[in-house]
Amino acid sequence: MNAEIVAIGTELLLGQSVDTNSSWIARNLARLGFNVFHVQAVGDNDHRLEEAFRIALSRSDVVVATGGLGPTVDDVTRKAAARATQRPLVFHEDLAKAIEEYFKKRGLEFSNTNANQAFLPQGSQVIPNPVGTAPGFIAKAGKSCLACMPGVPSEMFAMFEATVEPYLKSLNAGGTVILSRVYRTTGISESLVNERILDLFEKSTNPTVAVLVHPEGTDIRLTARASSEEEAKVMLDALGRQMTSRLPQHIYGWDQDDLETIVGRLLATRRLTLAVAESLTGGLVTHRLTQVPGSTQYFRRGFVTYSNEAKTECLDVSPTVLSAYGAVSSEVAVAMAKGCRKKDGADIGIATTGIAGPSGGSDKKPVGLVYTALADESNTWVREFRFGGGREVIKRRTAQAVLEMVRRYCLQLPMEE
Amino acid sequence: MNAEIVAIGTELLLGQSVDTNSSWIARNLARLGFNVFHVQAVGDNDHRLEEAFRIALSRSDVVVATGGLGPTVDDVTRKAAARATQRPLVFHEDLAKAIEEYFKKRGLEFSNTNANQAFLPQGSQVIPNPVGTAPGFIAKAGKSCLACMPGVPSEMFAMFEATVEPYLKSLNAGGTVILSRVYRTTGISESLVNERILDLFEKSTNPTVAVLVHPEGTDIRLTARASSEEEAKVMLDALGRQMTSRLPQHIYGWDQDDLETIVGRLLATRRLTLAVAESLTGGLVTHRLTQVPGSTQYFRRGFVTYSNEAKTECLDVSPTVLSAYGAVSSEVAVAMAKGCRKKDGADIGIATTGIAGPSGGSDKKPVGLVYTALADESNTWVREFRFGGGREVIKRRTAQAVLEMVRRYCLQLPMEE
Repeated sequence: MNAEIVAIGTELLLGQSVDTNSSWIARNLARLGFNVFHVQAVGDNDHRLEEAFRIALSRSDVVVATGGLGPTVDDVTRKAAARATQRPLVFHEDLAKAIEEYFKKRGLEFSNTNANQAFLPQGSQVIPNPVGTAPGFIAKAGKSCLACMPGVPSEMFAMFEATVEPYLKSLNAGGTVILSRVYRTTGISESLVNERILDLFEKSTNPTVAVLVHPEGTDIRLTARASSEEEAKVMLDALGRQMTSRLPQHIYGWDQDDLETIVGRLLATRRLTLAVAESLTGGLVTHRLTQVPGSTQYFRRGFVTYSNEAKTECLDVSPTVLSAYGAVSSEVAVAMAKGCRKKDGADIGIATTGIAGPSGGSDKKPVGLVYTALADESNTWVREFRFGGGREVIKRRTAQAVLEMVRRYCLQLPMEE
Repeated sequence: MNAEIVAIGTELLLGQSVDTNSSWIARNLARLGFNVFHVQAVGDNDHRLEEAFRIALSRSDVVVATGGLGPTVDDVTRKAAARATQRPLVFHEDLAKAIEEYFKKRGLEFSNTNANQAFLPQGSQVIPNPVGTAPGFIAKAGKSCLACMPGVPSEMFAMFEATVEPYLKSLNAGGTVILSRVYRTTGISESLVNERILDLFEKSTNPTVAVLVHPEGTDIRLTARASSEEEAKVMLDALGRQMTSRLPQHIYGWDQDDLETIVGRLLATRRLTLAVAESLTGGLVTHRLTQVPGSTQYFRRGFVTYSNEAKTECLDVSPTVLSAYGAVSSEVAVAMAKGCRKKDGADIGIATTGIAGPSGGSDKKPVGLVYTALADESNTWVREFRFGGGREVIKRRTAQAVLEMVRRYCLQLPMEE
């Protein structure tokens, strides 16, 4: 079955906000096995919206719309949907009462304007709003149907999951399901990932394989089409196992996993503590580590030592080493990792140093030259990188690289493959 | 004149990427005075794309498309555009040569597939691609026109600015211009901002006023419609002055300005140095400070002291104060600010402490309780907040609050209005 998305709101047409609702809905429609062939964005204008609904209903089995269900005259979705599906708007006493209740509970004044939200196209199914005031609705139009939800993401997500998804599943009973899984890699270039999995790529039409690159690494997305969620999972598992065997050391997580969460879990289960010394990354590494709830368990102290004096005073990096090798050197990275470890009494110390740019580079030490180091009680490891990208990207790549050293340390993998 | 955007790519329909190109184009079309009434996203299918172009050309004066200009069979924009504008595809010898040159220069192999990119609809104007291989084109269709550019953002931006924008300006000569300016505030609630500027809001239909909220503060966007860019600027300046007089202390910047850049500029011009001690924010403050190129000028050292021991050892926070008041207290925040200042020898020290959650809160000290402090040679300032939002939002709000203290210190404004 074919589905289409209509996003409503003048702010989308002015470029004042990016339409993230549509991509959320698209992902979920794909998961439910619908082919999405069109997305439209339309402003708060009843005639143009009516026309957009007509076009959508003429070519798609299911139309999912978001936005324009507020109480004001700007909110034209109810009117446009009624006209496009040729149904009059009907007042729902019970919905008006529920909205009034919602206002009373919060000590807010209820006006007739708010009651506008209780008008729905005749014969349509109500989509209750568990999070806000605006109810949604599903209206039939010939063989097609139109589901309208508010544009506030939290309300739309809740309503889709509670009411629209079960409805769509019933339409698509016995249909296909599309399921995706993302394997997240770091520390390996896109072209090397491609080389390793190219044959899987070429052979596999279902699941399909797609490679997506970002500063923290390369993601591999498998997408399976099957007659049930279970079957799709089996297919993803099978190809996923092959994928993993090609990249046994580089896949650090799945889907929304981030490296700080993975590293945090590894440190916590091994009862290891970590201290951090940052020059180049300037606090990004500890910021990421402390995004994880419960990180106090394994992280107690970090140093952002931008100046040489700070490196010496906070981390006991010897002035001789600093002047002999320069602040951006493997020797200083190692000394920083050792120093923060010792000062904190942690099991592991990690450090970053490098040239983030845009200025400060030289022929011998260009912008993007980076050292990351890890020290434990008896050993040290250091890596050198030459990262591209601007200041922010270099910081992001470096933070990821040093966290990856911690992951590899915990899993007793070699620091480089 | 009416304009419409068509974004091409199956990844948009699967929700695998968010369509940021469309909002970029929409913003620029608005700036050039075009009314954008529709945005469509379509997959890599020539029939559906042809139909989308037909619909767009029938209702809009200008259609701007992005994507589908690569060399492979998946890239159907040239074919669909040719059919929708009823022009045959014609081979451009010179474009093919230029693409071949591009490949040679980079030591890459040129194949016949790559030559596909040299086919354009007959009689169309070439949009040169200064950044990549795929040329774009502008094809006329009756009174309307269709401009097609690649989907790679950097290529699309460069081609729009160099060729499409001048073309559109010539179409719209003597037309209207829409110009926006954002005033950025922090440390004042959305409802207070509204109260202060409500009458400007209600009275003004041109420029219009819109309020946008994010964890770091509240933005106020003025949008003016005028017959020239100069006239629009005069209108924005006039309303902007009124706005500023209502919020004299809270507006810290304009448009893309962020607080770390503003604060960095203030510190640099005053030749002040800054040291940072972070508990709750975990490195986010120094991460933001060091995003700014040249921040070494005023920032040399930061401490992330998550544990009590770290606070005592790194910052000389007295164990007695810690046990008497607890780590989350105004007393400890002040001691941290003083301590990092002294250790670094900086002019100013700032500090954050608080409960980020989700756990660790109590009735007396709930999640979201935050203290930020600033110390100079002779004085200290401390602020208490009760922030809502999850762990990440609380961290972001706190980092913004402590940077705002630095801004107010530099400008000799009261820490609270």
